[in-house]
Amino acid sequence: MDQRFSIYLKERQEQVNAALEQLLPAATTPPVRLHEAQRYAVLGAGKRIRPVLVLAAGEAVGGDDRQLMPAACALEVLHAYTLVHDDLPAMDDDDFRRGRPTCHKAFDEPTAILAGDGLQALAFALLVKTPVAPERVVRATQLFAEAAGSCGVVGGQAADMGGEERVVTLPELEFIHRHKTGKLLVASVAVGGILAGGSDEQVRALIAYGEHGGLAFQIIDDLLDVLLTTEELGKDAGSDAANGKATYPALLGLDESIRRAEEEVAAARAALTVLGERAWPLAAMADYFIARLRQRRERTLQTGN
Amino acid sequence: MDQRFSIYLKERQEQVNAALEQLLPAATTPPVRLHEAQRYAVLGAGKRIRPVLVLAAGEAVGGDDRQLMPAACALEVLHAYTLVHDDLPAMDDDDFRRGRPTCHKAFDEPTAILAGDGLQALAFALLVKTPVAPERVVRATQLFAEAAGSCGVVGGQAADMGGEERVVTLPELEFIHRHKTGKLLVASVAVGGILAGGSDEQVRALIAYGEHGGLAFQIIDDLLDVLLTTEELGKDAGSDAANGKATYPALLGLDESIRRAEEEVAAARAALTVLGERAWPLAAMADYFIARLRQRRERTLQTGN
Repeated sequence: MDQRFSIYLKERQEQVNAALEQLLPAATTPPVRLHEAQRYAVLGAGKRIRPVLVLAAGEAVGGDDRQLMPAACALEVLHAYTLVHDDLPAMDDDDFRRGRPTCHKAFDEPTAILAGDGLQALAFALLVKTPVAPERVVRATQLFAEAAGSCGVVGGQAADMGGEERVVTLPELEFIHRHKTGKLLVASVAVGGILAGGSDEQVRALIAYGEHGGLAFQIIDDLLDVLLTTEELGKDAGSDAANGKATYPALLGLDESIRRAEEEVAAARAALTVLGERAWPLAAMADYFIARLRQRRERTLQTGN
Repeated sequence: MDQRFSIYLKERQEQVNAALEQLLPAATTPPVRLHEAQRYAVLGAGKRIRPVLVLAAGEAVGGDDRQLMPAACALEVLHAYTLVHDDLPAMDDDDFRRGRPTCHKAFDEPTAILAGDGLQALAFALLVKTPVAPERVVRATQLFAEAAGSCGVVGGQAADMGGEERVVTLPELEFIHRHKTGKLLVASVAVGGILAGGSDEQVRALIAYGEHGGLAFQIIDDLLDVLLTTEELGKDAGSDAANGKATYPALLGLDESIRRAEEEVAAARAALTVLGERAWPLAAMADYFIARLRQRRERTLQTGN
């Protein structure tokens, strides 16, 4: 990874972790077990991609990124809730997540359901706390609510569940990804840009970046699930294949999937042009993911692992 | 019921039902099954108490209640999601709700979990769509998010689940009710008052009304669960007792519970004084619930049923 970006990313991740620690209800607040579960679900290891995107998008339009921290945390909190619910026995039934037992394994099923529900509400509470002009907060919250809803993340997960029992076509897979992962990544940069006072043109550029980058991210995620071991990944490696989930490598093959990921990363970078030099962390983020994939791909070719 | 209020209530309920019909994503929007489940969960029979409270609170501070319809629907949609999740097998495991199979019975468990998740996001989407000054929207959404979260509705349900395995004390029962039901009823009137431009004094009065009225409502709900048959109630009668749930009649006895409910209704009505004549539907709503209880109590005494 580019050293400048590596420092930037680490700094931002630490700031986000410190803010999350503070903004989540304390584990001593009743109901104690619920709040313990919420903290467990959010404060575990995590790359904090979405909050970093919020902050980087805010900087890219020249905003004061310190004001954006509650909103950045909102994106991570919402993401964490979707993981808790996706892992439930009635859903993907996963036992491990980010290298630890999933929330319903570490606690219990009702607590995990409620922790997820509470985290979704908390995400909105954090977002509407952003200390900028209320017009911007309302616009950002409209966009965020849509991304979080049945035509966004939740719709993507529903389509994913529905597709597990049969062969999924490429357009269906793209629907799933665009909704399940893509909408929230787009929302991250759009929310950051809107709250920081970006122009319509700047916000449009951020959305285009998010759309292409989001698709690349998902293809790469599918590819890493195939290429990495459980230990490296922190969740059950190959679990998508074991669950009979449709993935890009399964539908397109490894090489074509990698080609697509690179194509989408290039389009994401191109969208950033109008934002100028201040958008460098967004460009570096896109490069980082594709580099991670290339590295892994080479190692796999060498070791046959 | 007072005839003037009966007409008012019916009119408002019909307006809310028509608005919900329109504001929920169509059952033809993909993912189709998810949207069918969302509509099933919201559009079934229901007294629409929370949206009517939003509208009545808006009128009580002299606002234009036509602007408040998306917000009114937001309260019903949030309420509907909490019912869907409360009914899940891992939670209260109820088969019937509002006289029909519960959402996970009519559809399936993953669909019910996701429908609930999507409805929570939709509630926020509707609320931030309210066409009034953005300062008001932000303030109302802050309050609403808190009421929906782990220190509100979700916290109340968590405390309720945690209390099922042991004897619950009166302070614990009050924690459960204040959070599980009370916070959302308070939010209904507060959101209506804030969005309609109520003064701080007016909003405070509405909150006091909501707090006392909310507690009365819960005590009465507990009482009706004991006094009514399954057919009349539209859910399993006596299911609270069967589930070993703490209730007011179980802790205080029937007569003392009724006395408390009447006391709270009186306090709720008293809080309305500063709002003047325009708050009459709120007063009538409080009277309606206590009247429903008194009627049923007399019938029970007569028939021994």
